[in-house]
Amino acid sequence: MPQPAYLTGDKEGIDKFIDQFDTFLFDCDGVLWSGDHLFPRIPETIEMLRSKGKQLVFVTNNSTKSRSDYKKKFDKVGIKASEEEVFGSSYSAAIYISRIMKLQPPKNKVFVLGETGIEQELESENIPYIGGTDPAFRRDMTEEDFKHIADGSMLDKDVGVVLTGLDFHPSYLKYALGFAYIRAGAEFLATNIDSTLPNAGSLFPGAGSTSAALSKAAGREPLALGKPSQAMMDAVEGKFQFDRKKACMIGDRLNTDIQFGIEGGLGGTLAVLTGVSKKEDFLAEGADVVPSAYVGQLGDLLG
Amino acid sequence: MPQPAYLTGDKEGIDKFIDQFDTFLFDCDGVLWSGDHLFPRIPETIEMLRSKGKQLVFVTNNSTKSRSDYKKKFDKVGIKASEEEVFGSSYSAAIYISRIMKLQPPKNKVFVLGETGIEQELESENIPYIGGTDPAFRRDMTEEDFKHIADGSMLDKDVGVVLTGLDFHPSYLKYALGFAYIRAGAEFLATNIDSTLPNAGSLFPGAGSTSAALSKAAGREPLALGKPSQAMMDAVEGKFQFDRKKACMIGDRLNTDIQFGIEGGLGGTLAVLTGVSKKEDFLAEGADVVPSAYVGQLGDLLG
Repeated sequence: MPQPAYLTGDKEGIDKFIDQFDTFLFDCDGVLWSGDHLFPRIPETIEMLRSKGKQLVFVTNNSTKSRSDYKKKFDKVGIKASEEEVFGSSYSAAIYISRIMKLQPPKNKVFVLGETGIEQELESENIPYIGGTDPAFRRDMTEEDFKHIADGSMLDKDVGVVLTGLDFHPSYLKYALGFAYIRAGAEFLATNIDSTLPNAGSLFPGAGSTSAALSKAAGREPLALGKPSQAMMDAVEGKFQFDRKKACMIGDRLNTDIQFGIEGGLGGTLAVLTGVSKKEDFLAEGADVVPSAYVGQLGDLLG
Repeated sequence: MPQPAYLTGDKEGIDKFIDQFDTFLFDCDGVLWSGDHLFPRIPETIEMLRSKGKQLVFVTNNSTKSRSDYKKKFDKVGIKASEEEVFGSSYSAAIYISRIMKLQPPKNKVFVLGETGIEQELESENIPYIGGTDPAFRRDMTEEDFKHIADGSMLDKDVGVVLTGLDFHPSYLKYALGFAYIRAGAEFLATNIDSTLPNAGSLFPGAGSTSAALSKAAGREPLALGKPSQAMMDAVEGKFQFDRKKACMIGDRLNTDIQFGIEGGLGGTLAVLTGVSKKEDFLAEGADVVPSAYVGQLGDLLG
């Protein structure tokens, strides 16, 4: 496998690389920012790509934010981008439930373990849900709960899907209900199963931690609708209509972003070193997932 | 592999089976009771074995209860047993930390994700701990927490072990701290990693769900000190001093109890069908873990 090109400081290499593509798919956390910290020269880099007429799509596994939340974040940090350019794993999951699973109401209710981003995207597809940010599910489990979950009387008969994402408010009650719905036949989906969440320059438990608690009990993994799932690539392509061979995925994680682009047959992938994966991870002999090129940070594309 | 003997209703077979052994190791949940429901004729069966001079040890993976809590439960349901006869996974973990790891104070502090059973057993071995049932760790994660965990200022420098057990009060803050301690070099231990908890005649998420949330983030599994870990068998044997060839493990779970007995080289194993595993699981062609014998329920040993 050829070594990826290191483009930082290589003005000619950068121009040649950018010219190959009409469309750039961006990961956000670890690429544009880490938590509330915007990386250097990001707005300018985005502007440079727009000035060259490139189509931009922000493809994020962060399930806690909706597309509308992302728009607010872009505005806050000074990146010019529209809500329509954002494609998040919560939206991907909502699309999957409404347009692929096509569950018939009222049996299309979703039990959510996650935050408001999931709820907003389910609402945008008119999918009913319970759980999520409802504080009623954060209370302590009681002996009565054990009985009424066991005998089914506490279960909503319309729940056909358990959907997990990053949940900042886990509770045993939610785990117990999620597990009970899965045992009763509900589909087990995850917005994404990222192992970690980059924030404040460090790593924290990711959405995979939420689903792992249920996976361990259920003895099976969820269908994950975020990167690197190709269900997400199909949905992104369906919405944005681009030529995969002329598209490039930019991301910080080999096993989500870069793998997503490679498996999706994109023309190229670009790794940035401001997030989870280190260059040693893909430069090592026998590395599984290797990008086409890499830069120290996204702003390096300005030359 | 020979088919296990079905002893229910076989008076002669039962007597012959019991006579082979001097010591019986019992699992509790799913064998003696399910939650608060005591199975039929349990006190009489225990009495029968005592009258034959058998040594009895109650070996449980339930980390939420200490040996003293178990004694109270035995009293409540009318089973004659002493605290000294109980060996739980929390006790097993405390023994492992104090006597095998031998961390030097003050660097022997344990960050606990679990309930009071773990705390009590750590106290019995004079091991300092934080986390656990402390309500301060159940609050919502703040942006400040992200920063102060990332920069290490919120971490207790004396923590050398992260110990997980069944936690009825999970929080993202606990997961984030547990993950940070593991990244900082703390040993990752689990009282047990049972996938499920039998209760109220059904199944709920087990201790494995707690550790799974951290395992997913950390990318590695904890050392589990409960069944089927042979660290627990060694500790049980060390304390109770019995001949393994004349000991029998009784349990409801093939992949914890029965495997524990087989790997420990015990003279026999007895499965009961009042818990997690079904007879189809071990009667099936090519079954991995097969007990020496089985009964419908423990009380069937009365003939």
